[in-house]
Amino acid sequence: MGAEVIILGIAGSLRKGSYNKALLRAAAELLPAGAELEIFDLEGITPFNQDLENDPPGRVSEFKAKIRAAEAILIATPEYNFSMPGVLKNAIDWASRPFGDNAWNAKTAAVMSASTGMLGGARAQYHLRQTFIPLNMRCVVQPELIVTFAAQKFDEGGRLTDEAARKILQLLLKELVGLAGK
Amino acid sequence: MGAEVIILGIAGSLRKGSYNKALLRAAAELLPAGAELEIFDLEGITPFNQDLENDPPGRVSEFKAKIRAAEAILIATPEYNFSMPGVLKNAIDWASRPFGDNAWNAKTAAVMSASTGMLGGARAQYHLRQTFIPLNMRCVVQPELIVTFAAQKFDEGGRLTDEAARKILQLLLKELVGLAGK
Amino acid sequence: MGAEVIILGIAGSLRKGSYNKALLRAAAELLPAGAELEIFDLEGITPFNQDLENDPPGRVSEFKAKIRAAEAILIATPEYNFSMPGVLKNAIDWASRPFGDNAWNAKTAAVMSASTGMLGGARAQYHLRQTFIPLNMRCVVQPELIVTFAAQKFDEGGRLTDEAARKILQLLLKELVGLAGK
Amino acid sequence: MGAEVIILGIAGSLRKGSYNKALLRAAAELLPAGAELEIFDLEGITPFNQDLENDPPGRVSEFKAKIRAAEAILIATPEYNFSMPGVLKNAIDWASRPFGDNAWNAKTAAVMSASTGMLGGARAQYHLRQTFIPLNMRCVVQPELIVTFAAQKFDEGGRLTDEAARKILQLLLKELVGLAGK
Repeated sequence: MGAEVIILGIAGSLRKGSYNKALLRAAAELLPAGAELEIFDLEGITPFNQDLENDPPGRVSEFKAKIRAAEAILIATPEYNFSMPGVLKNAIDWASRPFGDNAWNAKTAAVMSASTGMLGGARAQYHLRQTFIPLNMRCVVQPELIVTFAAQKFDEGGRLTDEAARKILQLLLKELVGLAGK
Repeated sequence: MGAEVIILGIAGSLRKGSYNKALLRAAAELLPAGAELEIFDLEGITPFNQDLENDPPGRVSEFKAKIRAAEAILIATPEYNFSMPGVLKNAIDWASRPFGDNAWNAKTAAVMSASTGMLGGARAQYHLRQTFIPLNMRCVVQPELIVTFAAQKFDEGGRLTDEAARKILQLLLKELVGLAGK
Repeated sequence: MGAEVIILGIAGSLRKGSYNKALLRAAAELLPAGAELEIFDLEGITPFNQDLENDPPGRVSEFKAKIRAAEAILIATPEYNFSMPGVLKNAIDWASRPFGDNAWNAKTAAVMSASTGMLGGARAQYHLRQTFIPLNMRCVVQPELIVTFAAQKFDEGGRLTDEAARKILQLLLKELVGLAGK
Repeated sequence: MGAEVIILGIAGSLRKGSYNKALLRAAAELLPAGAELEIFDLEGITPFNQDLENDPPGRVSEFKAKIRAAEAILIATPEYNFSMPGVLKNAIDWASRPFGDNAWNAKTAAVMSASTGMLGGARAQYHLRQTFIPLNMRCVVQPELIVTFAAQKFDEGGRLTDEAARKILQLLLKELVGLAGK
């Protein structure tokens, strides 16, 4: 029997050693029963050009198909310049177009972030939540998972070792799967 | 004698017929004396990858050099999904990195937007203004230039014909040049 | 048999002829079956002072009891200075305190706004949605009800006459009641 | 000889032992030469009612007169529910009305915040900065003064003892006075 809820995980960073990619890997370890996580790497998603929206690059079509095959979306985003990364927003823009073909429609989302600093990506999360309104995505309200001082909370192999963060992540996943199942 | 204030104009859209590109061309017609506008097209700015930030693509280096050569930055942005386009944010991210080499530092900015709808890009402008805090850019406070129902305000050749919008744009440019000159 | 879903309606304005109060009255006409709307007027809610939070004014206690008796919260807010009115935020603050006694916890919300201008309160709605995160309120994602140019859409008696707005309001109420019932 | 720049200080909290009030007192110790700080307590500013805007309460008129007598505005704000306190926003609303009689017009502002938690009021500051757009206030861009874990940074008498915070505050004041003087 297959999973009841398929989650698509997206990290807002292309960096190899990204803490947000590592946060998605931690999520894979902490899934509730009945859920499955597939991770999509934004590498290869080129800058959005509306002139091409009716004939998007293959990588974009592949991305949209993955979104459509999932019930839930888990976004791990760093914060660049007090907002979400352009790389993440660009992928969101592609998958929302053309008009009438928004792949995000009616999906359930959860957001989380990790950063080496003290704010941990909170500001990126709020801008991201605002984009969920026109995308028509409902989003888990709480808990907020904001992994601050990330260098101390992941080990050298990129594994999330902080117990408090792991517990919040586990709770977030449970909420996501519960909300997506409704 | 050269211009006293060089303005770099950036549109947040790659679309050929973009109303925001057209708004920049309108700005070129309405500059106050002593100002010069150069337009930089974001075409060719690839997705930001922090692993490459110390050896960025040539197009990014070119972009940063253009920013540094200017005193003022004029951004014309559409609104995608209640925020600024990923394409614009991505270019901002590149030019702000690596740490300690933020090309935007201490520049003076003005923002404007055009769209075919009723809100006209306002929500993109507020997210953009928030990014100016860490970038350390001061921004013209008023007037706000939000060209709504753009299809009625530009002619077929992409020229801004709406007199009210032209007047606000002229005032915005005057404020930008005045603030940059201080 | 009583209503299955009790909605508490709150307008963010104290003005007698407030369009947002009128929007709440329109909601009362358009409720789905099984729902009931009670309106609470923020008149008499004094400025929040944390020194008094353990012994709040009677009007605040009454407000919190009304919130607790409801499953759903319907907020009609004007926009003052690009955000929600202080009057509305102040009432939210009171009802969220003291720590551990947040009356908003786990309530389901919907937001709407009316204004005489072109933006119609959208910016107030986004700030309001952000406060729902710590309050732990889930909020209807769509439709967005933003009644612009309100002077043309209400008659002299303060009745919402605009058919398009009435339909969106009806849909919003249906979504609110559906979400609250889950 | 009088001060060249008069700063009006406002705390967004009515609490007696407020860290944000304490932050204003610290500012009084750290003023640059030629600047003077007057503190206005928001106690007594009643909830805004537009029906009364042409004949506001005396305390509001007094507030508006104080704003008008100053060149610069220094706001110390806590964060309540991921935004600015209703008490602060309410005072802002009163002083901005009636239409055409906005006391904030063309003032120069700086914002700062203190809180016992880790985010320190940042989210309140960004909402506040957005209100400065329609109020037509320019705001110091950097430094951001966000006093986190305030209980450790003020002594029992409410004096700011944290040296790093004091230095940032001193710099913020210098920037405010410099910007107001232009």
